[in-house]
Amino acid sequence: MRIDRERLRVMIEELGEIGADPEGGISRIAYTPVWEDGILYVEKRMEEAGMQTRRDAIGNLFGIYPGRTDRILLTGSHIDTVPHGGMFDGALGVLAAVEAVHTLRESDIQPEHTILTAVWAEEEGNRVFTGIGSGAFCGQIPEMSELNLEKLHQAGHSMQNVRDSVFDGLDRIDASLELHIEQGAVLEKAGVQIGIVEGIFGLHRYETTVFGTADHAGTTPMDMRDDAMVKAARLICELEELTKKTDPQMVCTTGWLRAEPGMNNIIAEKVTMMVECRGMNEEALRVVRSYIASRYGEGGTHIEDTLILPPVPMSQACREAVRDAASELGFTSMPVFSGAGHDSECLAHAIPDTGMIFVRSRGGKSHCPQEWTDWEDCAAGADVLLHALMKLDIQARGQADKT
Amino acid sequence: MRIDRERLRVMIEELGEIGADPEGGISRIAYTPVWEDGILYVEKRMEEAGMQTRRDAIGNLFGIYPGRTDRILLTGSHIDTVPHGGMFDGALGVLAAVEAVHTLRESDIQPEHTILTAVWAEEEGNRVFTGIGSGAFCGQIPEMSELNLEKLHQAGHSMQNVRDSVFDGLDRIDASLELHIEQGAVLEKAGVQIGIVEGIFGLHRYETTVFGTADHAGTTPMDMRDDAMVKAARLICELEELTKKTDPQMVCTTGWLRAEPGMNNIIAEKVTMMVECRGMNEEALRVVRSYIASRYGEGGTHIEDTLILPPVPMSQACREAVRDAASELGFTSMPVFSGAGHDSECLAHAIPDTGMIFVRSRGGKSHCPQEWTDWEDCAAGADVLLHALMKLDIQARGQADKT
Repeated sequence: MRIDRERLRVMIEELGEIGADPEGGISRIAYTPVWEDGILYVEKRMEEAGMQTRRDAIGNLFGIYPGRTDRILLTGSHIDTVPHGGMFDGALGVLAAVEAVHTLRESDIQPEHTILTAVWAEEEGNRVFTGIGSGAFCGQIPEMSELNLEKLHQAGHSMQNVRDSVFDGLDRIDASLELHIEQGAVLEKAGVQIGIVEGIFGLHRYETTVFGTADHAGTTPMDMRDDAMVKAARLICELEELTKKTDPQMVCTTGWLRAEPGMNNIIAEKVTMMVECRGMNEEALRVVRSYIASRYGEGGTHIEDTLILPPVPMSQACREAVRDAASELGFTSMPVFSGAGHDSECLAHAIPDTGMIFVRSRGGKSHCPQEWTDWEDCAAGADVLLHALMKLDIQARGQADKT
Repeated sequence: MRIDRERLRVMIEELGEIGADPEGGISRIAYTPVWEDGILYVEKRMEEAGMQTRRDAIGNLFGIYPGRTDRILLTGSHIDTVPHGGMFDGALGVLAAVEAVHTLRESDIQPEHTILTAVWAEEEGNRVFTGIGSGAFCGQIPEMSELNLEKLHQAGHSMQNVRDSVFDGLDRIDASLELHIEQGAVLEKAGVQIGIVEGIFGLHRYETTVFGTADHAGTTPMDMRDDAMVKAARLICELEELTKKTDPQMVCTTGWLRAEPGMNNIIAEKVTMMVECRGMNEEALRVVRSYIASRYGEGGTHIEDTLILPPVPMSQACREAVRDAASELGFTSMPVFSGAGHDSECLAHAIPDTGMIFVRSRGGKSHCPQEWTDWEDCAAGADVLLHALMKLDIQARGQADKT
């Protein structure tokens, strides 16, 4: 049994025309009219695939393909994009799920589990904040800042909508599986088709300030300087080495830096920079933080944690289902990590058996008009999604039988 | 013969009250009413010291103490300040010259040379541009941008005023000597009273752009990155070492840096930074420039020269006069360089025998309310100025006799 790759391609291309931006890429921001157009497009495809559809109060769309029991397998992704984003980020996971169900129906297969295909509202966080749809579904009622509350209202929603969207059958979900493009170049570099996601990286973001002494750039000899810019530069170089040495999977980035007073002819008194570390190993992340904090002694540096998200491992059952499905279908596969956040990060907190499948992104590019995944890889991902879901259907049924 | 240190102190303090800023320091910007008040204050002190005074079209003030001939020794400095500047920068050189002449008159000494004490208009460059007064005097008619022309007009002047201010007796000036605070901490650290300025550093300023590749900060492993921020940081660290190694006097500063796109979660594609090198050795300055240009290969870096000023050596005659005067007066002295620009930089282009004397700045601080030079050092500097001028008076007369 294989999905219809032509039908999948057409859906991805047609959805890609909704919100196509004359300035390049796709701008289909959550809760905007074009996003609603996209939701309607997917809803129709769900119906054609044989699903019942419904929407919840926060704007999540669900396609329901009834199984023999009320136990649930969850799949899907999102269709909102960043401004000038790509055609595959999110959309592939949604449309591959629709196509997988369509294939099941055409093959007259009714699984044990009801298959729930979700289109999560606002994964990219351009309108209110990231993961509001999948979070609400899982019962994560966020603490809202005044600004975010205003954004929520501007998007046409309220906290009551969030609360009303908590799914009342969470305990009936046996597993969740999301197909997504890698948004990195690890699979491409390795020449491998399918990524078995082992986990989603934890993310630590530190606003780091390094202190020096402002002095005249002409009259202060090199050996009499306390130059915050040189100290910051040294720290950036050292973090690069430390990160590689401490955990080969961990990444560390300084994407933004400001020197004060920021004058050509004054030695920097203060450099503020945003250091971001991501990885699966919380201890390794803490090693980096300690290094930053202690590098220039007490008072030499100030660290403020601006974002701390723990790593989220994907379940063994899901990983095995993906690995075995890929292998049986004749696709190459390898374990990978997700350096980016996904709806599955929210879902994993409520659904123990949560997993993800990655397919290759050409050049690792994403969130830009150049984002591309070959049609062959899209189809391979969809096939693995379909077969892994079927494995989880049997496996979870087996587990249910045992209880 | 010694200057009257009490009279000098009172003048510095009284001038320091003109433009005293309620928010701290002194804000006596060139061509403003408080600066004019300062000019009037100095003019009165010049008259009390026995000088004739005159002003030129661009606002330079001169005090003339007639000698036995029309050959000229030039001295003086400036009284404009940066916003919230200090009490000694410029003011010391002007008032010490006035005090030196006052001392000569009280001692009934008429030198061979007419002593011309100048208060140069706009040394700090806050109103039009730096050195407009001393430059015009020397016949440096600048190429004016439209912006600078507008600033000149707003300051109440015109290009005709610049042209009218060229001094018609440049060939009668045998030497120029300016006393100034060091604005650095070299003398203080060495515990030495008098700095014999060997030269004014050349200044090269490069807008340097380092290129990388923008990628997702989470999904791009460390060994697959081309991070412009890390490359820029490495360059800053390497320039620090290279500068020290190439020329121990040279200084190199990156005071300003901008990363693009400048997002927390995107690897920097481009880092632009202002690298400034100063030193006496042009070859050493070029070594730094070549290193920057070649560090990341062709296309990896872009350099734009935004300011190139050659080093300006001070004359041997002036240096010897300062050294001998300090020694005879019992002051400790040492050769130093000026890392900052001064009016003498303009003057040296027209007057071969140009020199400077430095006195200690506490903690090296300048251009701020904390700027301070002990009264003892102010007096020492003024005494050395007086005696060095007298040495130049004899020496230059000797030279004149020979011709």
